[in-house]
Amino acid sequence: MQKTDVLIIGSSAGGMVVAGLGKRINPDKKFTVITKNEKTLVPCGIPYVFGTVGTTDKNIIPIEQSFAKKGIELIYDEVIQIDREHKEVLLKSGKIMAYEKLALATGSNPYEPIWLPGHDLENVYYIPKDKVYLDEAQKKIGKAKKVIVIGAGFIGVEMSHEIHKLDKEVHLLEKLPNILSLAFDPDLSDRIEALLLADGVKVQTGVTVKSIFGKDKAEGVLLDDGTRMEADAIILSMGYRPNSALAVKAGLPVNDKGFIIVDEYMRTTDSNIFAVGDCAEKKQFITGKSVPIMLASTACAEARLAALNLYGISAVKSFSGTISIFSSAIGSKGFGVAGLTEREANEIGMKYVTGIFEGMDRHPGCLPDSEKQFVKLIVARDSGIIVGCEVAGGLSTGEVTNTIGIMIQNRMHICNLMKAQIGTHPLMTASPAAYPLIQAAEDVVYKLRVESRKKEVK
Amino acid sequence: MQKTDVLIIGSSAGGMVVAGLGKRINPDKKFTVITKNEKTLVPCGIPYVFGTVGTTDKNIIPIEQSFAKKGIELIYDEVIQIDREHKEVLLKSGKIMAYEKLALATGSNPYEPIWLPGHDLENVYYIPKDKVYLDEAQKKIGKAKKVIVIGAGFIGVEMSHEIHKLDKEVHLLEKLPNILSLAFDPDLSDRIEALLLADGVKVQTGVTVKSIFGKDKAEGVLLDDGTRMEADAIILSMGYRPNSALAVKAGLPVNDKGFIIVDEYMRTTDSNIFAVGDCAEKKQFITGKSVPIMLASTACAEARLAALNLYGISAVKSFSGTISIFSSAIGSKGFGVAGLTEREANEIGMKYVTGIFEGMDRHPGCLPDSEKQFVKLIVARDSGIIVGCEVAGGLSTGEVTNTIGIMIQNRMHICNLMKAQIGTHPLMTASPAAYPLIQAAEDVVYKLRVESRKKEVK
Repeated sequence: MQKTDVLIIGSSAGGMVVAGLGKRINPDKKFTVITKNEKTLVPCGIPYVFGTVGTTDKNIIPIEQSFAKKGIELIYDEVIQIDREHKEVLLKSGKIMAYEKLALATGSNPYEPIWLPGHDLENVYYIPKDKVYLDEAQKKIGKAKKVIVIGAGFIGVEMSHEIHKLDKEVHLLEKLPNILSLAFDPDLSDRIEALLLADGVKVQTGVTVKSIFGKDKAEGVLLDDGTRMEADAIILSMGYRPNSALAVKAGLPVNDKGFIIVDEYMRTTDSNIFAVGDCAEKKQFITGKSVPIMLASTACAEARLAALNLYGISAVKSFSGTISIFSSAIGSKGFGVAGLTEREANEIGMKYVTGIFEGMDRHPGCLPDSEKQFVKLIVARDSGIIVGCEVAGGLSTGEVTNTIGIMIQNRMHICNLMKAQIGTHPLMTASPAAYPLIQAAEDVVYKLRVESRKKEVK
Repeated sequence: MQKTDVLIIGSSAGGMVVAGLGKRINPDKKFTVITKNEKTLVPCGIPYVFGTVGTTDKNIIPIEQSFAKKGIELIYDEVIQIDREHKEVLLKSGKIMAYEKLALATGSNPYEPIWLPGHDLENVYYIPKDKVYLDEAQKKIGKAKKVIVIGAGFIGVEMSHEIHKLDKEVHLLEKLPNILSLAFDPDLSDRIEALLLADGVKVQTGVTVKSIFGKDKAEGVLLDDGTRMEADAIILSMGYRPNSALAVKAGLPVNDKGFIIVDEYMRTTDSNIFAVGDCAEKKQFITGKSVPIMLASTACAEARLAALNLYGISAVKSFSGTISIFSSAIGSKGFGVAGLTEREANEIGMKYVTGIFEGMDRHPGCLPDSEKQFVKLIVARDSGIIVGCEVAGGLSTGEVTNTIGIMIQNRMHICNLMKAQIGTHPLMTASPAAYPLIQAAEDVVYKLRVESRKKEVK
């Protein structure tokens, strides 16, 4: 029987970070990562493999070298059972390995709609984090002339745009009234839809697929309204489900959506077993309610917490809840959201004020590569605390969204943003006198002031 | 005699923002801006006029339209005297205008080294915020073949790089051992110097100019070591001095460097007179000491404070000190600094820990337009509070620097950054597992931990 101190199952973002940071701060402990994938893909890069990047070979995280350098053991195998009583795992190869601490970073799998007739036909593809599967899918999709993508979340949107670059006719179908509507308010999703349409992706929202038809292999889809759409390839991007089968088998509680239940230090109910990333439950930072967020960036934040708390709990190093920070890009246009959207604020009955501003992200605006920059802030009306934002602009949007993410995590008051000092430069940011983030704050302060005056009049 | 409620002297960043925000929250008050410049330039865009932008005509803030839309009166004239007792100003045109509140946003002027022989010859140029002067200078510099730029602060560096784009031989001379050394530590200034050299700008540091020689017009410079360098044009970018003559004449106290003394609400010693921007004193956020920072972004932050406090002081809307946030770019490479540099920390005897990481700003790193991203965090050792940073990378550097600026303003603890949640996207940011900002935080936490262990052993 082999032995290790910290055993990590999974080598994607979450597993990698638990191992790397854990080993760095516990250099005397032995760290072992077990992965069933021969190659570990950059998860968020996957849609870009189909267009911009061109091949999964350029989208690989070199974990062998990285782990070897850090003194972390890497084993290609699969854990098929956890024996919590004896603190051992059974591997597919038949080997047994003992652990002191265990971290589950088992990720997620694409959702398979078994209720959808034809979902299992040939030429129907999913987007798992699996190089072998994706290489085969890419080859076959490459030969298709007409592709239907079902489900307009991030993967569906990014895949559609990338595949369209290969001169294919691409149809993106979404049953909800807006694309990306679980992440963005219509302010942003409408802009993204317009960009997709302008680039030639045929987007249809509010349409429900009734079945996939075809003999042997898929030949198209039938919509609820009776429309038949033909295609050579169909991609199902209808979300992901936590891969928690191993945890369930080991008797670790999962929630009603299958996420492994964890505490604020990322511990499961077994204090020697941690869970991070797509397989672990996330609680929303304001409501405390469970949310089905799956992001590599969230996985990494959780993994850092787990690593810091592996040996001895550190009270300050706990999570106050998940602040979902999403970003995406279509060509040179970026989109981002952090914290609550208006839809979410309404759902929980929070009274809020929005501040909106649109300007240019360079100054003067005639500079090459200038893009319009739109910022919407969402501020809790009773406290003045910033709780959410949406940003649209050029490719600096990802970092602008992170700036607001940091404000939300610091529970920053809108008055502190109004007087905040920022740095600006013609080639990199908006003008200091019309910096959209600050102008949006001004809009909030103005609205709050107008409201308080109205109250005084009453 | 004309009358107004709020009179603002100066129409650049500071004056514009006092007027815009002030009028928005005090719609019943009359706001008047007096400017002596026929056109108001985007201040930070000036160096780019000489290369990328091509003409000052494309670098103008359309204040006429903006003020008209907001209901702000705009007068082209010059205030030559302030009568504080009667709350009136005398204009160059002979008119008198009464005010209720006055805001000085009189800016700064290039430093003229009157001790330097030849400084007043023809073909010697300064870079003031003056369209008429700059248009003439641009025309003449455009005809020069060899240009010497004296002083490698931001203006000197940016001007040299832009002018070099016009296929001129450009020499940039700096007396200190490093370029930009008042803003950046050598980590960054060495990188910028290397980029300038690689692009063909001839940079020399540690050289002192003894005189400018030439009959009638400048023909070159003589260095301290006897070297003679010939040139057709010489640009003096040796810093700026606050334009506080009007304030001094009115008996308002200025500090030893000529900056108008203001309180935390941007009021001068006369509570009806505010001062903002380059002419107003700035106190450093940690030491409280006066610092000669001149940035349009700082001016705007001060102007927002002044606007909010014009009528009735709001306790929450005060400044805790200036956090200098600088950024600049050379081609597609960006550089930024927020808060204290190591040099400044050393000067005040602060014990600190640095955390450093360098990665790629896209993921996978093979994506087009990927740049290396370097982050150095400076953290106070006794408290763990983040007090400074330096960032080098692509053009998202400006916004990454702002993210850290917000952390500094929120007095964020390094442990909170370690567990911070960020958003990532292949086309816009570094990878979530190797996001330089978080990795640099990890480096700090690791160093603090190693140190505390050493203490335990003792």
